[in-house]
Amino acid sequence: MPKVAVILSGCGVYDGSEIHEACAALLALDRAGAETVISAPAGPQMHVVNHLAGEPAEGESRDMLVEAARIARGQITPLQDLDPASVDAVLMPGGFGAAKNLCTFAVDGADCKVNPVLVDFLRRTHDLGRPLGAMCIAPVILARVFGPDLAPQVTIGTDPTTAGLIGQMGARHVDCEAAGVVVDEKNRMVTTPAYMLAGSIKDVFAGAEAFVAKLLELCG
Amino acid sequence: MPKVAVILSGCGVYDGSEIHEACAALLALDRAGAETVISAPAGPQMHVVNHLAGEPAEGESRDMLVEAARIARGQITPLQDLDPASVDAVLMPGGFGAAKNLCTFAVDGADCKVNPVLVDFLRRTHDLGRPLGAMCIAPVILARVFGPDLAPQVTIGTDPTTAGLIGQMGARHVDCEAAGVVVDEKNRMVTTPAYMLAGSIKDVFAGAEAFVAKLLELCG
Repeated sequence: MPKVAVILSGCGVYDGSEIHEACAALLALDRAGAETVISAPAGPQMHVVNHLAGEPAEGESRDMLVEAARIARGQITPLQDLDPASVDAVLMPGGFGAAKNLCTFAVDGADCKVNPVLVDFLRRTHDLGRPLGAMCIAPVILARVFGPDLAPQVTIGTDPTTAGLIGQMGARHVDCEAAGVVVDEKNRMVTTPAYMLAGSIKDVFAGAEAFVAKLLELCG
Repeated sequence: MPKVAVILSGCGVYDGSEIHEACAALLALDRAGAETVISAPAGPQMHVVNHLAGEPAEGESRDMLVEAARIARGQITPLQDLDPASVDAVLMPGGFGAAKNLCTFAVDGADCKVNPVLVDFLRRTHDLGRPLGAMCIAPVILARVFGPDLAPQVTIGTDPTTAGLIGQMGARHVDCEAAGVVVDEKNRMVTTPAYMLAGSIKDVFAGAEAFVAKLLELCG
């Protein structure tokens, strides 16, 4: 039974992990017979968004690990404590948290910085031959960490601006439909657009099932 | 295409809606071709629980409608603004929010009070012949609102203490396995244990699919 690290960044599409994507990934992994270990780096979110008003909640501060624990039902491991050798694959759902908390792409574009604990974890899992998967906007993290060295092939759907920034970071963007999957066999990376294109949760789940199947295939 | 109101109570198993159950219900409804309108009453949660520490976060306050909007990706209707005649069925996921925010069952047991906006909404939808569904611990709300008049048949799984309290509120408890469904045809109520018994998210989804199928059947 492969063990997959699911890396979250909070709880909520506008300031953390996209909840439907995270649950679709967890469900697809569970149905495929994989074990999961949910994790997140500790540290403050870029901001807190009131999801009813659609506006930042001024003066409020939340920690991405503490909030991600909501999706994990309390069963979460701080990323700094997760041994890369203990997992067979890595999966990052999307949501603005991936582009605001795990890295600064939402603010800095192609010049973004990635959380250093995450950079270390991704480099070490990759060096161990573990496949890496990313949904929605999270592939920008793979582009930023591995672009210059490996020129990985990834997708965020079809948005030309984001695709252009991925190219600037050294990765190669491939257009892909909502529930499709892009597989970079050589670099062992799998990406899917999810809510970058999906119309509703059933499309997100369809994409997550195909994506998880490819990710687990690469576990060998 | 039937339209189903999904009533949330926050975002997170220990102080709001159980996230996996809410997503499993939304996914099952979407796959079954139903339209959904996500809703929650406005008002403060009983408390905020740090899901990493598993303890109340002292001095923090969150609103169940604002937090539920995270699961709804911002697309949520305050329950006070939702016309009972505009929906074909009602579905309440579980999580402690159902027993702490939507009613006071977690504190007051069989003497619990149900949020008055929710009582009004449930009575009016029921009077219009709309079927009502509840997952996990949320069936205690149906027991409290309808127990004395209708003696509805519901399940929360197999826990004898909770089952006993449901009996004290005038409803009839039926033991049920994790992914099973209890249907009260006469009162048009459908319940399923979800995480009262489920071992993981795939069991929750299996139960949600069976439960949603029965709920939609009762829409006629």
